[in-house]
Amino acid sequence: MNSQLLSRRDLDFLLYEWLDVEGLTARPRYAEHDRSTFDAVLELSQQIATDHFAPHNKLSDANEPTFDGERVHLIPEVKKAVEEFANSGLLAASLDAEHGGMQLPYVVGSACIAWFQAANVATSSYTMLTLGNLNLLLAHGSAEQVDTFVRPMLEGRFLGTMCLSEPQAGSSLTDITTRAVPQDDGTYRLSGTKMWISAGDHELSENIVHLVLAKIPGGPPGVKGISLFIVPKYLVGRDGAVGERNDVVLAGLNHKMGYRGTTNTLLNFGEGVHTPGGAPGAVAYLVGEPHRGLAYMFHMMNEARIGVGAGAAALGYTGYLKSLAYARERPQGRPIAGKDPATPQVPIIEHADVRRMLLAQKAYAEGAMALVLLCARLSDDAATAPTEDERAEAALLLDTLTPIVKSWPSQWGPAANDLAIQVHGGYGYTRDYDVEQHYRDNRLNPIHEGTHGIQALDLLGRKVTAGGGAGLAALAARMNRTAERAVQAGGELADHGRALKSTTDRLVEVTAALWAPMDVEAALANATVYLEAAGHTVVAWIWLEQALTAASAAGTASAGTDDPFYRGKLHAARYFFRWELPRTGPQFDLLASGDRTTLDMPADCF
Amino acid sequence: MNSQLLSRRDLDFLLYEWLDVEGLTARPRYAEHDRSTFDAVLELSQQIATDHFAPHNKLSDANEPTFDGERVHLIPEVKKAVEEFANSGLLAASLDAEHGGMQLPYVVGSACIAWFQAANVATSSYTMLTLGNLNLLLAHGSAEQVDTFVRPMLEGRFLGTMCLSEPQAGSSLTDITTRAVPQDDGTYRLSGTKMWISAGDHELSENIVHLVLAKIPGGPPGVKGISLFIVPKYLVGRDGAVGERNDVVLAGLNHKMGYRGTTNTLLNFGEGVHTPGGAPGAVAYLVGEPHRGLAYMFHMMNEARIGVGAGAAALGYTGYLKSLAYARERPQGRPIAGKDPATPQVPIIEHADVRRMLLAQKAYAEGAMALVLLCARLSDDAATAPTEDERAEAALLLDTLTPIVKSWPSQWGPAANDLAIQVHGGYGYTRDYDVEQHYRDNRLNPIHEGTHGIQALDLLGRKVTAGGGAGLAALAARMNRTAERAVQAGGELADHGRALKSTTDRLVEVTAALWAPMDVEAALANATVYLEAAGHTVVAWIWLEQALTAASAAGTASAGTDDPFYRGKLHAARYFFRWELPRTGPQFDLLASGDRTTLDMPADCF
Repeated sequence: MNSQLLSRRDLDFLLYEWLDVEGLTARPRYAEHDRSTFDAVLELSQQIATDHFAPHNKLSDANEPTFDGERVHLIPEVKKAVEEFANSGLLAASLDAEHGGMQLPYVVGSACIAWFQAANVATSSYTMLTLGNLNLLLAHGSAEQVDTFVRPMLEGRFLGTMCLSEPQAGSSLTDITTRAVPQDDGTYRLSGTKMWISAGDHELSENIVHLVLAKIPGGPPGVKGISLFIVPKYLVGRDGAVGERNDVVLAGLNHKMGYRGTTNTLLNFGEGVHTPGGAPGAVAYLVGEPHRGLAYMFHMMNEARIGVGAGAAALGYTGYLKSLAYARERPQGRPIAGKDPATPQVPIIEHADVRRMLLAQKAYAEGAMALVLLCARLSDDAATAPTEDERAEAALLLDTLTPIVKSWPSQWGPAANDLAIQVHGGYGYTRDYDVEQHYRDNRLNPIHEGTHGIQALDLLGRKVTAGGGAGLAALAARMNRTAERAVQAGGELADHGRALKSTTDRLVEVTAALWAPMDVEAALANATVYLEAAGHTVVAWIWLEQALTAASAAGTASAGTDDPFYRGKLHAARYFFRWELPRTGPQFDLLASGDRTTLDMPADCF
Repeated sequence: MNSQLLSRRDLDFLLYEWLDVEGLTARPRYAEHDRSTFDAVLELSQQIATDHFAPHNKLSDANEPTFDGERVHLIPEVKKAVEEFANSGLLAASLDAEHGGMQLPYVVGSACIAWFQAANVATSSYTMLTLGNLNLLLAHGSAEQVDTFVRPMLEGRFLGTMCLSEPQAGSSLTDITTRAVPQDDGTYRLSGTKMWISAGDHELSENIVHLVLAKIPGGPPGVKGISLFIVPKYLVGRDGAVGERNDVVLAGLNHKMGYRGTTNTLLNFGEGVHTPGGAPGAVAYLVGEPHRGLAYMFHMMNEARIGVGAGAAALGYTGYLKSLAYARERPQGRPIAGKDPATPQVPIIEHADVRRMLLAQKAYAEGAMALVLLCARLSDDAATAPTEDERAEAALLLDTLTPIVKSWPSQWGPAANDLAIQVHGGYGYTRDYDVEQHYRDNRLNPIHEGTHGIQALDLLGRKVTAGGGAGLAALAARMNRTAERAVQAGGELADHGRALKSTTDRLVEVTAALWAPMDVEAALANATVYLEAAGHTVVAWIWLEQALTAASAAGTASAGTDDPFYRGKLHAARYFFRWELPRTGPQFDLLASGDRTTLDMPADCF
């Protein structure tokens, strides 16, 4: 199997040695499981990702979907891969047994999905979107809706989408204008245009289940008047068979820099191209209650944002492993202290600057993956931890970390891919190698599911202020506990612990200082700097957690200190504390100074 | 004309208000010129770039060159553009009048070329490489070589290349194996394989003049045994007519992430496909003396590296202007303090985070362009300043700044393009807009003409140590003089001046500390961090120079303080000093600590 997608050794370390995922089997929901069932599904994921997703990753990039005016054409390997995924049962990995699910912990499911994202993020999108869609319907849909739409998705017959954005309303959902008018039979007729809809049209499945945000006329203004609807591409009969064409029409495909294998579409609803039941408008079914659409959508947003972070981490990770393999094999140049041209060239991993680029990638990719899995584990804890206090604390931490788990991997995953190209030299810039595609694919992640700037406003404007600052207080308490353990461990770990403690203190102080004047415009002006400083602080914590785990394992295992895996973790933690965490110093200084440079720049002076 | 390529107002500011290019006309070489001739050639460049280079930029990206086994096919617009450039006389802009040149200052020529790089960096490469080639031949070739090869290049009939790298020797020229064997008639027969040769084959010209590094058997080992040869694709008769095919054969085109319009080739020399004159080997003509090839090549390297920096700056610049135009037009969201959905959406330039992204781009793009033009002006001064001391000081400064003028724009130009995409949101990720291509094109710049890491070794390992540290001393003296002027100017400029002074002091101290132990491996381990910190320090100086010039102009011009152009310069300088320069703090700390993290990471622990 391809060893350059992810490191199974590292996943085992994160899941079993650090996050104690095996301990979850003590909880009733996961009682049927043990490590061997977790391992089996991880192996299955790696196998299918390697055999059916990775092989056509470059092919689907070079042959992006086309639209002939009638149908969308994709290379056949995509359909085969999506079918293999559905047949594996992985769509139902985390679902309840009553829905045919495996009741796997979400943290295990996330590690499984990372294999597919590393192998082929574009093809995996079709399944990820379907997973988000069916999870939302399971949470908020009626029994009939679940039966009609979720069951066929689990069987791989239908695929799903999420339709939020509109051409005039990207990040600003308050401005959506898609309308849904109630009908006498309890259905709605929906009309409007949706933009940036991934997997919005294709021939991969019998039907496409669109989940669409729209406004019911007469409802409250702004986001309070948004409702959620199911709009299938084809109407579904009582027998479950696919019938008449609904009025959802592909207006065009977007042609992107990367992520090319995923169709991204402009969809027209209710334009009158089709007239299902002989009447105008796309037939739509309300999910849950009117005007609660955004709340339902945000219910799924935590997991969608973990999913984006996971994809960014996975792409950063596979690029790291590929550039590592290249650096071990490629001879070029000689040691700096002995440049005798008569001696053979050395592998480039011998050069300090190449090791810098590999260490940085390791720190970003493994740090991002660890952050993603921690958040997935918090999601499990929020649902299944034994006590209500534990569940509440996990939910609070997850809420606070969500903008970071979305944005940090999306910023540093592409940075890792940039370094992966650089390690390859000119070869990295060619399409003969994989890394340039990872760089292009990964560039989407700071844009979709809430841009980098939107995450920053969410963190500083909502998450750290909600509940009187309870989220930040809970996070700081967790980070300080880790710092204390490190100080007690002594040596270099104690240095890291003290650095984490003082940076956490700084984060808390600066947060208070930003909000003290009660000037919302000034407080949020530099929100992106805040997001990035908070992100690096959190990932320093994640690295210290990993270092403590590695040191502990190395200290107890026989000859453990010679284990290159644990030594690598300790070195990467050292890199993060010496090279990365200090970046936050000038960021906190800027925030603390109440800098108004961006606010004060007049628009006409650019 | 397209106002989104570069800002003519800014170029005028840099050339005339800051660098006093008009003052150069007092020197004999430029005595025929005045501001009106400089303006005319700048306008001509903008015109041709706008009319003949920009329109096919996306087209040549989407339709990259193909090779049918016999010939290379490019879209016809490329040939037309290259011809327009040649017909304009711009190839001879900086040349001596005796070679038909205009004897324009190199700094003016660089500003002209930036228009073409902003419009279409891939097509402009054919002319830039030819310019480098013919300049080298004018400096080191024989009169006959100039007549045979340079004249047709100036007429636009021939184009040129530089052939350095080989598949087994990218950055390591000591390991090239291409051989050139002397013949009785004074020519050589050359054989070997060259990799990454831009413009290495095409049908744009009657002939291609390759300048090839090769070793003459029996010469010294390593780089001391490298000689420089002319190898034309077609032999040229005494009458100047193109004749027999030489044995230079295209083995394949490289398919790149960006820069797609420029053919990039693997070339086989002397493989026996053609047998010119009935004998094996490619016919080659020695340039200058044997074994001095690398010295000749490095003679041109300063200007080639300024050229790469200029291209990176130009791409950053055009991306900035395009995202600025988009931000002024695109409505989305509302002011943070008044989110009433009943009010209309505002242009996104009203959002602080968008202004952050625009200010950063302005700081990177205008800062990089200013750095490039300063270095071009130093090149002029090194050749034509009135006194020998002035010429020597300019040459020393230019030598010291060369790794920075190559690498800083190549790092921050792509960073600007990344922000240009982000300002565009999802649209920026599509190929409907220009900015994703700029991002892909610009990614080449940290790789070619000496990678980022190679520039770092050049700066820390050679440039700042040469002559007992004379280069750094001269640079620091210049920066300190600017800082003193700023302190005298008072107000915010004085703050900037003090910050520049202390950062320059830090740079000098850290340089001494790194070399004090005389351990070359340890001193150079973190050379890239040094390069990046030194680069930001230098660009802070460049921004302070611009701010002083703007403040002075605004203070003397009537109503000058209201001029948005000067106010914009002062704001961008503020941005650089508050947001960017502080990044160097942790970098200098790391360097001063003698950090060995990269050196100490064992290769098997990744």
